Amino acid sequence: MNPPASVGIVTPQTIAFEQPFALQNGDTLPRFDLITETYGTLNADKSNAILICHALSGTHHVAGRHHPDDKHPGWWDNMVGPNKPVDTNRFFVVGLNNLGGCAGSSGPLSTNPATGKPYGSDFPMVTVKDWVRSQAMLADHFGIKQWAAVMGGSLGGMQALQWTIDFPERVRHALVIASAPKLSTQNIAFNDVARQAILTDPDFHEGHYASRQAVPRRGLKIARMMGHITYLAEDGLGKKFGRQMRSGELQYGYGIEFEVESYLRYQGDKFADRFDANTYLLMTKALDYFDPAADFGHNLHTALLGVQAKFFVASFSSDWRFAPERSHELVKALISAEKDVQYIEIESSHGHDAFLMEDEPYLKAVRTYIDNIHKELAHESA
Amino acid sequence: MNPPASVGIVTPQTIAFEQPFALQNGDTLPRFDLITETYGTLNADKSNAILICHALSGTHHVAGRHHPDDKHPGWWDNMVGPNKPVDTNRFFVVGLNNLGGCAGSSGPLSTNPATGKPYGSDFPMVTVKDWVRSQAMLADHFGIKQWAAVMGGSLGGMQALQWTIDFPERVRHALVIASAPKLSTQNIAFNDVARQAILTDPDFHEGHYASRQAVPRRGLKIARMMGHITYLAEDGLGKKFGRQMRSGELQYGYGIEFEVESYLRYQGDKFADRFDANTYLLMTKALDYFDPAADFGHNLHTALLGVQAKFFVASFSSDWRFAPERSHELVKALISAEKDVQYIEIESSHGHDAFLMEDEPYLKAVRTYIDNIHKELAHESA
Repeated sequence: MNPPASVGIVTPQTIAFEQPFALQNGDTLPRFDLITETYGTLNADKSNAILICHALSGTHHVAGRHHPDDKHPGWWDNMVGPNKPVDTNRFFVVGLNNLGGCAGSSGPLSTNPATGKPYGSDFPMVTVKDWVRSQAMLADHFGIKQWAAVMGGSLGGMQALQWTIDFPERVRHALVIASAPKLSTQNIAFNDVARQAILTDPDFHEGHYASRQAVPRRGLKIARMMGHITYLAEDGLGKKFGRQMRSGELQYGYGIEFEVESYLRYQGDKFADRFDANTYLLMTKALDYFDPAADFGHNLHTALLGVQAKFFVASFSSDWRFAPERSHELVKALISAEKDVQYIEIESSHGHDAFLMEDEPYLKAVRTYIDNIHKELAHESA
Repeated sequence: MNPPASVGIVTPQTIAFEQPFALQNGDTLPRFDLITETYGTLNADKSNAILICHALSGTHHVAGRHHPDDKHPGWWDNMVGPNKPVDTNRFFVVGLNNLGGCAGSSGPLSTNPATGKPYGSDFPMVTVKDWVRSQAMLADHFGIKQWAAVMGGSLGGMQALQWTIDFPERVRHALVIASAPKLSTQNIAFNDVARQAILTDPDFHEGHYASRQAVPRRGLKIARMMGHITYLAEDGLGKKFGRQMRSGELQYGYGIEFEVESYLRYQGDKFADRFDANTYLLMTKALDYFDPAADFGHNLHTALLGVQAKFFVASFSSDWRFAPERSHELVKALISAEKDVQYIEIESSHGHDAFLMEDEPYLKAVRTYIDNIHKELAHESA
């Protein structure tokens, strides 16, 4: 086996969809763009395509670098690339920024054709079901009838699950990682606090801050700092920072005193620099609303009866935002609906963020599963 | 046994300390007031006094009502009263608002004699050690040489613990409930987010909002909403609110949609109406700084060697802010220092807030312990 390598320099591609797109909330987008990146080569029968769905703050930039001096690679570069678990020597991998995003796809920062100004909070609220339909249009664009796999972590895993329900014949495998069949009450509660921090920021201007050259940085930073704590495990945080102080002595002030404060504020600032507040609001609402069982009498078993995909489900021991128990709910419902499911619970001290981390047993599990998809495809075409 | 009853109508009493009080941070308060409530009667040898220490948002108003139409009794009314676990027929119970508080004791809302304006953020930062010393002055005021017990939950339990270390001969029993020998990294992280929400509120005015007729409501509300989630257990939240919605249909907006949102925002508003932001900042810092082992080479065992008090330690199964493991640390250190300790872990779905709740096994455990203190005192005086 050759050593894993990077996909190298990648260039995003924006795909325009010039037809009206009706959304779940009743609104219609007159047109929309999806920004994408692809890695690897689509084979002749277009059977080797894998769709990567992003989580709350992710983008289309899954792997590789945009230019040689790029400091950071894509967000799942340890997962996707030549000889990596999702092997781009074998698969054609598609990453996209979801509708409502702020990384190049149509969203609150895009120009509203009705006003000539940025949509801001007038961008319609999008749902996981809307995303899946827009991703199906993206599949059509590439001529992909069926994905070899749809995969994602957290909110990305929710999209993979929704795909198997809404387009059963178009997904061969779903990889649902660190996710849940719906948010818990606590998840919704944290999301609401995050939203309130943004909505009550005086620089929010009812979501039309861009037209006023303002940015609700404070709210976005608070939301991210709080979110960040919930993505990490107590155990991991403790090991990394403990009660370590910048200086040896108590400062009796509100500056940075404990190292964990420095870390969190830095993370909050970095996020506020790059992320759009309206997108943050939309994404958290998409999370809250996700509940595929709701269309089936709130019965997940029933929701899964028509599914044709096989499932890989993974959770992480210290993830308390999307705890292993939440994955168990999905696995149990899949089994009760007599679906094919492989489940692994990974020991980790990284909490919810573990799905993005370099972790040998985790990456090995995904590699094995994806390798078997490759064998399955090779066997069928032989 | 007579049925538990209320202490009835109570009247706070403000006690003035007209001497300079040197604080841990190096500052000196020229004078200070402590507002208190007492219940029951101090006996002739002043041996039956119990001090109740409050947590982050508590006050001196522990039990009873201030007037007949008072909607809510004191915060620990289920614990303190005639024939209640802390039986005011037998004990003289003292509640106080801590220095730096906003319920009547000297704090950021008090007038700064140097300026004639409210102290605001110029009120010095106080620590658990400072509180304990001020409480010792309060004991002197009442002529109490030794407390029969010092007790509290959460930050209140920390004060009880600090008492046993700083004034070993003045505490007979310490009841440390839902507490910890120091905050975890995650605790500190949540506190910092709460503080940042307040400090970055444009109405904070560097802590001098009172002089400007402003109130940093937004920040205080966000801080409380987030705090509230962490005081409750996922399980309890789920049972109480689930994913229940106000209306049956998705609203696709940022108003109140899920019942848990309504609950949290209401709690946030109520808190912002009654609590002072500077006090909130001070209290969270006192929590962060609390680390009695720090003075003893960061060895809790060593810190406890001089302790004379006997301990009652209680934790709650679903409390993830001060998890049972944190109480175990204290219990283990007490045992290794050969101290007398009774520990109980209560099954509860109420999370950290369980220490304030009506819970039969919990109240029974405290009642039994306090009854035994009464027997001990009766035996000694016989």
